[in-house]
Amino acid sequence: TVDIAGTPVQIAGIAKGSGMIAPDMATMLVYIFTDAAYDQGRLQALLSAENDTSFNCITVDGDMSTNDTVLLLANGLAGNGKLGAADLKTFQAALNHVCLALARMIVRDGEGISRVITVRVTGAKSFADADAAARAVGNSALVKTSWSGGDPNWGRIIDALGYSPAVVVEEKVDIAYSASGSRKKIYSLKKGRPTRTAFGTLCKTVEPGEFDLHIDLNLGKAAAVLHAADLTEEYVEFNKGDISDPATLGG
Amino acid sequence: TVDIAGTPVQIAGIAKGSGMIAPDMATMLVYIFTDAAYDQGRLQALLSAENDTSFNCITVDGDMSTNDTVLLLANGLAGNGKLGAADLKTFQAALNHVCLALARMIVRDGEGISRVITVRVTGAKSFADADAAARAVGNSALVKTSWSGGDPNWGRIIDALGYSPAVVVEEKVDIAYSASGSRKKIYSLKKGRPTRTAFGTLCKTVEPGEFDLHIDLNLGKAAAVLHAADLTEEYVEFNKGDISDPATLGG
Repeated sequence: TVDIAGTPVQIAGIAKGSGMIAPDMATMLVYIFTDAAYDQGRLQALLSAENDTSFNCITVDGDMSTNDTVLLLANGLAGNGKLGAADLKTFQAALNHVCLALARMIVRDGEGISRVITVRVTGAKSFADADAAARAVGNSALVKTSWSGGDPNWGRIIDALGYSPAVVVEEKVDIAYSASGSRKKIYSLKKGRPTRTAFGTLCKTVEPGEFDLHIDLNLGKAAAVLHAADLTEEYVEFNKGDISDPATLGG
Repeated sequence: TVDIAGTPVQIAGIAKGSGMIAPDMATMLVYIFTDAAYDQGRLQALLSAENDTSFNCITVDGDMSTNDTVLLLANGLAGNGKLGAADLKTFQAALNHVCLALARMIVRDGEGISRVITVRVTGAKSFADADAAARAVGNSALVKTSWSGGDPNWGRIIDALGYSPAVVVEEKVDIAYSASGSRKKIYSLKKGRPTRTAFGTLCKTVEPGEFDLHIDLNLGKAAAVLHAADLTEEYVEFNKGDISDPATLGG
């Protein structure tokens, strides 16, 4: 519930993803409901913007689905009337909270996932570069297996950055870990060189079920965030299914 | 050994890949030796051409290495002298045989691999499209896990084709399996629709350690081949390593 110029406005959401409910279905479905009195065009614009930093920025296994859906339905019952830019910002912040929370819940529910990693790329030359760098890292089989082993590996990360389409200068890259949402960074790499941080200290930072990976390319001002997951034996076990029981085989 | 205008010419090769010999190393290294008397420029041109259809067309986990190497060394001891275009073709065919055999051996040796799949895309609008389509399929976590389960899945394949950058018209796509190198195709999909082939028949085709996957986009004349592998629990187990024994952690 968010207060819009004295009127309480509700936003509720339901998401389903990263699992299989029937053969040939493995789909993200998100329905968000609000009683806010905003017109369709305005809500669509808000939702599309939120989508770019929430549902479109998650990855479990890098395999896009054939029929992802994000819907926002408003019945106007809150009767909040026509509102100024400041109120719209309040609503947008609330919508962002719901979208991001649902998006991260989808990753947390990912098949066989043991850890959720927020990949935060900064210092890129462009948003496209920052996004490509984050996706290369977050979808790398080798990076994802190191996460599942609790290994604060930087070699595989810089390798993935290297083969991403982003402009990367190895000698400028900083890599750090932090607790989820924390600003206290533990650096494993500075200007392309390993720091003297003890291996055990780095291991402790990547041990929890959620942590942040900070990659500063130190080349520009663009940034991107990707909500990613590790790759476990359970993911393989789940998705290879059992041909003697075709109901276990997914789409 | 290949006969070049009456002179026996030898080609020998050694390859190392898909494994880890020391932390921060996970590299493809290929050395090919010949006693053919050809100059450096000609051999480089031949090797570069072969590379495009052998070593550059394999994938174990989609993670490119930082320092892959393919070298061809010639000492000229065969004394085959200056030769015509036909002889060069004979040599090239022999070199192709060596490169392709080594490339496939690298995939077969891939970490935790249980099956090698030759992805043959035809009917693409351009080579770039055919190549992109083959790589999307061969690097999809969901396709690779279905291969490890012996599941003749077509849903995940057409899904990967759909998100590849290639032009794909779903209603035109044919998907078939065959024994490795065989032309006898067992279709699972024709013009985007499932065939009536029995599930058990399809399962038998994808059961062996090596088989071919044929994807005809039916849009043009371009083709590409990718030598790919499945994704197993053993791959994850191997690559997540053990932080209590840092020697098991790879680059």
